[in-house]
Amino acid sequence: MSKILECIPNFSEGRDWEKIEKIVEPFRKTEGVKLLDYSADKDHNRLVVTVIGKPSGLRAAVLEAMDVAIDVIDMHKHKGEHPRMGAVDVVPFTPVRNVTMEEAVELAREVAKEAAERFDLPIYLYEEAATKPERRDLANIRRGEFEGFAEKIKKPEWKPDFGPARLHPTAGATVVGARMPLVAFNINLDTDDLEIARAIARKVRHSGGGLRYCKAIGVALKERGIVQVSMNMTDYTKTSLYQSFEMVKFEAQRYGVNVVGSELIGLLPAQALFDVAEYYLRLENFSPQQVMENRLLEEL
Amino acid sequence: MSKILECIPNFSEGRDWEKIEKIVEPFRKTEGVKLLDYSADKDHNRLVVTVIGKPSGLRAAVLEAMDVAIDVIDMHKHKGEHPRMGAVDVVPFTPVRNVTMEEAVELAREVAKEAAERFDLPIYLYEEAATKPERRDLANIRRGEFEGFAEKIKKPEWKPDFGPARLHPTAGATVVGARMPLVAFNINLDTDDLEIARAIARKVRHSGGGLRYCKAIGVALKERGIVQVSMNMTDYTKTSLYQSFEMVKFEAQRYGVNVVGSELIGLLPAQALFDVAEYYLRLENFSPQQVMENRLLEEL
Repeated sequence: MSKILECIPNFSEGRDWEKIEKIVEPFRKTEGVKLLDYSADKDHNRLVVTVIGKPSGLRAAVLEAMDVAIDVIDMHKHKGEHPRMGAVDVVPFTPVRNVTMEEAVELAREVAKEAAERFDLPIYLYEEAATKPERRDLANIRRGEFEGFAEKIKKPEWKPDFGPARLHPTAGATVVGARMPLVAFNINLDTDDLEIARAIARKVRHSGGGLRYCKAIGVALKERGIVQVSMNMTDYTKTSLYQSFEMVKFEAQRYGVNVVGSELIGLLPAQALFDVAEYYLRLENFSPQQVMENRLLEEL
Repeated sequence: MSKILECIPNFSEGRDWEKIEKIVEPFRKTEGVKLLDYSADKDHNRLVVTVIGKPSGLRAAVLEAMDVAIDVIDMHKHKGEHPRMGAVDVVPFTPVRNVTMEEAVELAREVAKEAAERFDLPIYLYEEAATKPERRDLANIRRGEFEGFAEKIKKPEWKPDFGPARLHPTAGATVVGARMPLVAFNINLDTDDLEIARAIARKVRHSGGGLRYCKAIGVALKERGIVQVSMNMTDYTKTSLYQSFEMVKFEAQRYGVNVVGSELIGLLPAQALFDVAEYYLRLENFSPQQVMENRLLEEL
């Protein structure tokens, strides 16, 4: 069965389309890799690429794109609203199909090690690939950004996981890691009372005593005159979409409020939806192997 | 976006494994085709193959397998419990992905025309590919079987759609057609009263005034001491799984009976389950393009 991962590399170039296309090119032409999306933001001056593919293809394409980015981006000239510390700022790998988190971590470390050697680039491992608890959080690593990193990197506790303990002269430093894919799931309520959405969000999210892999905030949808519980499901294999849906529903009941709809933003793995169908139909002994398309994917 | 169909050809050989493997071989080796299953039944003396793939690959593989089957099977020597009229008895094509029923019908007719010419074989079109209403039903065409067909085929109303108006000397005649994939969906009830399952089946199925694309019977699961409404969903794109599930649930309520679980038997297209998730989560603006694996399938 073919192993499929997603990778969402972020590069510090959001304005020069000639450079952007050059960076993206390896994701177009590498076999076993499919470019799903890339978007550049002028204000952030940042390029976010979404690709999926087999480990070998992803590894080759990411390294080649890093090579291009390091070549064309000079961090001394980079200005943008989004925090960043390198030309290749952050490279997260996420498991999609037939891949364990351990395998995603292994791929992240391989890419990090090879990139550090090939480009003489300091690299930090984050989230599931982190080597120390304080390096799990990207914001924690990136604090100080490119400008402050020349000093930070000299501190023993901020010695990079791979590569030299000094910034790359033009490309800065890079963070590579592995995490579960985020599923962005929003639930709409038939009220315009934002406080109700906020109160429900607090009960549903992990930090408020709710679901372990759920982040949630309350949001007003002004045009529609309703409010929304906007959620990030950080591990859909452990906290399922139906759990947050049912939980929002029963929390809403105490306010006499109903769920009028929901929306999924962006991409998600098929299994996240199969889990929902399995729950509501009370399926016994369901196997993803029963899904025709899954059998075709084995061929990839 | 790549077009994917399923084909479930039935051959009149269920005993000689050397012949069976020869017939199956083209489905193993043809590019763009994946052999999902094949099972031979001794009593039926029949081989049922399940393959999925692109139209061009399926067409080539089916024609090659027909060639082999016509070569190795002699219908004069064939005996079995299952009704049959030819060495290649029936060849249904079903749409799975990005394929309309019209396209499936077109593929069925192409294969039928080419096979008739290449093998000098009489061929009837059935179900959605049928040229006359009385040829929609396979049982209606096949009535009389191989032994009775020498006479039946001479009647003007039973002139084949393609090929000569006489049986192939050893391979008889073949039925080719197109239909929706069947989804076998069973719902378990917490009672051992078979009459309740039967009464619910009657209300849920099309013939009893229920759902348009649902066939249903009541079945006893003796080992578990419960009963089941066993359904064939004949067009999951029009009658969704959640509709039959909810309908069985509310019919069961009048008997004070609950749904304790359900099961899907065999294969089904992913979309049948996405529809279920979409309904229960009340998803707004969901697109199958949001499913990562669907984007990968575009590459096939």
